[in-house]
Amino acid sequence: MEFIFERTVNYYETDKMGITHHSNYVRFLEEARCEFLKTIKLPYEALEAKEIMIPVLGVNCSYKHSSTFGDTLKIKTKVTKFTGIQMCVGYEIINEKTGELVLEGETRHCFTNTELKPINLKKYDKEAYDILINCMK
Amino acid sequence: MEFIFERTVNYYETDKMGITHHSNYVRFLEEARCEFLKTIKLPYEALEAKEIMIPVLGVNCSYKHSSTFGDTLKIKTKVTKFTGIQMCVGYEIINEKTGELVLEGETRHCFTNTELKPINLKKYDKEAYDILINCMK
Amino acid sequence: MEFIFERTVNYYETDKMGITHHSNYVRFLEEARCEFLKTIKLPYEALEAKEIMIPVLGVNCSYKHSSTFGDTLKIKTKVTKFTGIQMCVGYEIINEKTGELVLEGETRHCFTNTELKPINLKKYDKEAYDILINCMK
Amino acid sequence: MEFIFERTVNYYETDKMGITHHSNYVRFLEEARCEFLKTIKLPYEALEAKEIMIPVLGVNCSYKHSSTFGDTLKIKTKVTKFTGIQMCVGYEIINEKTGELVLEGETRHCFTNTELKPINLKKYDKEAYDILINCMK
Repeated sequence: MEFIFERTVNYYETDKMGITHHSNYVRFLEEARCEFLKTIKLPYEALEAKEIMIPVLGVNCSYKHSSTFGDTLKIKTKVTKFTGIQMCVGYEIINEKTGELVLEGETRHCFTNTELKPINLKKYDKEAYDILINCMK
Repeated sequence: MEFIFERTVNYYETDKMGITHHSNYVRFLEEARCEFLKTIKLPYEALEAKEIMIPVLGVNCSYKHSSTFGDTLKIKTKVTKFTGIQMCVGYEIINEKTGELVLEGETRHCFTNTELKPINLKKYDKEAYDILINCMK
Repeated sequence: MEFIFERTVNYYETDKMGITHHSNYVRFLEEARCEFLKTIKLPYEALEAKEIMIPVLGVNCSYKHSSTFGDTLKIKTKVTKFTGIQMCVGYEIINEKTGELVLEGETRHCFTNTELKPINLKKYDKEAYDILINCMK
Repeated sequence: MEFIFERTVNYYETDKMGITHHSNYVRFLEEARCEFLKTIKLPYEALEAKEIMIPVLGVNCSYKHSSTFGDTLKIKTKVTKFTGIQMCVGYEIINEKTGELVLEGETRHCFTNTELKPINLKKYDKEAYDILINCMK
């Protein structure tokens, strides 16, 4: 299952090179991930209300083409690995206007309680576990 | 009592106009305010540990000259009003290299507990109150 | 003429107080302003292509209620002053869910060329001038 | 040759989880890289003045422990690969107070002119090339 999230680059996200600052893409990936979770009926707010957090263990981004203010980015998002203990999410960002691949990336996550202690989602919240397992199909 | 905090503009704080994005100065003022509190022996971490927060009620900034990547900014900070219930802090940012006035600004604050309910610092923490009253002299 | 722009608060825009960091609203106002310009057929990208810039001379924000991750903010935007040389834009941010007023604010602007020298829009680009004058009605 | 850069986490760099938001570390790496270049007498401003840019091609971060507001981070920075065409920089972030490893990371770069066309630093600026080659020793 692949999800596409669109967002436009803001002026404050550019830098003096005239392009989107590379750090902002890490934020765009978070936006895409949150929208994805909303779409599969696991909104992050609801997870937090159940004292489940999904911190980021790793980020890996390859920047292929630059983008700039006003560009609309299509962010393809998919769960590439999910065990209940760990999750990997893969991303591709496409510049809508040019069709160029802007970024390929991946984020790695675990699941924790509010004290940031790792939990096994299969035991902690079977319903959420099942939804995420189904995303792998 | 006036306090001076220095910080250099980072690349990621510029925008495609080639200058420091105006929103970042609001962050620089927070940095200056926190350094100021540290200097007067009221570090914000310690206040938070005592369940005291100092949220921002208002920000007023006039941008006079631009600055850019690598510029060192001197941020003059002083408490301009303090009643135990409200506090105003005034700022002037000077570009060290050019001597230009970059910004004049003010932030308005109250004091709250961790539920963001307003408190009177005079009753809640007399020691902190006395330190801040003395800053007005 | 009043314009309403909606946007949802991202996780990375919150701080350890659990609320939207106050500096981010200054960025939300820029987003609202850019969307407003797009709506009146004066997209900022097109102005930049004509070497017109609209730097921020001042920002004034009063924070009324906090907002947090996942909240949808309605940002009411309107030109409150426009002379061809200066422009003021007023804003009200409403939390869609609670109906609370989150922020009242204003930004002040001038018009410049790409060297950041002030220009009179009436002389420099009469068409853009007429569009903005009409927004005042 | 290893370089150590210290910086303290700002309030606006935390998120509602109470910790430094993961995207900010990518910015801290840029700060460390710029300070490193300054130390080896290749300040990024001077490179830009010679129309040389060092865009980021990739970022890879592993988050090991969280940090939060007020924590001082020691960022160890070293050039791990340099060919004149590509450069890799490796980083380790240590929390000064706890001694914990906060992050291990790497950024990949090329060298370009101001039109973002790749250049070979060995041909374009032999002096800068020699300085960077020497950092590998």
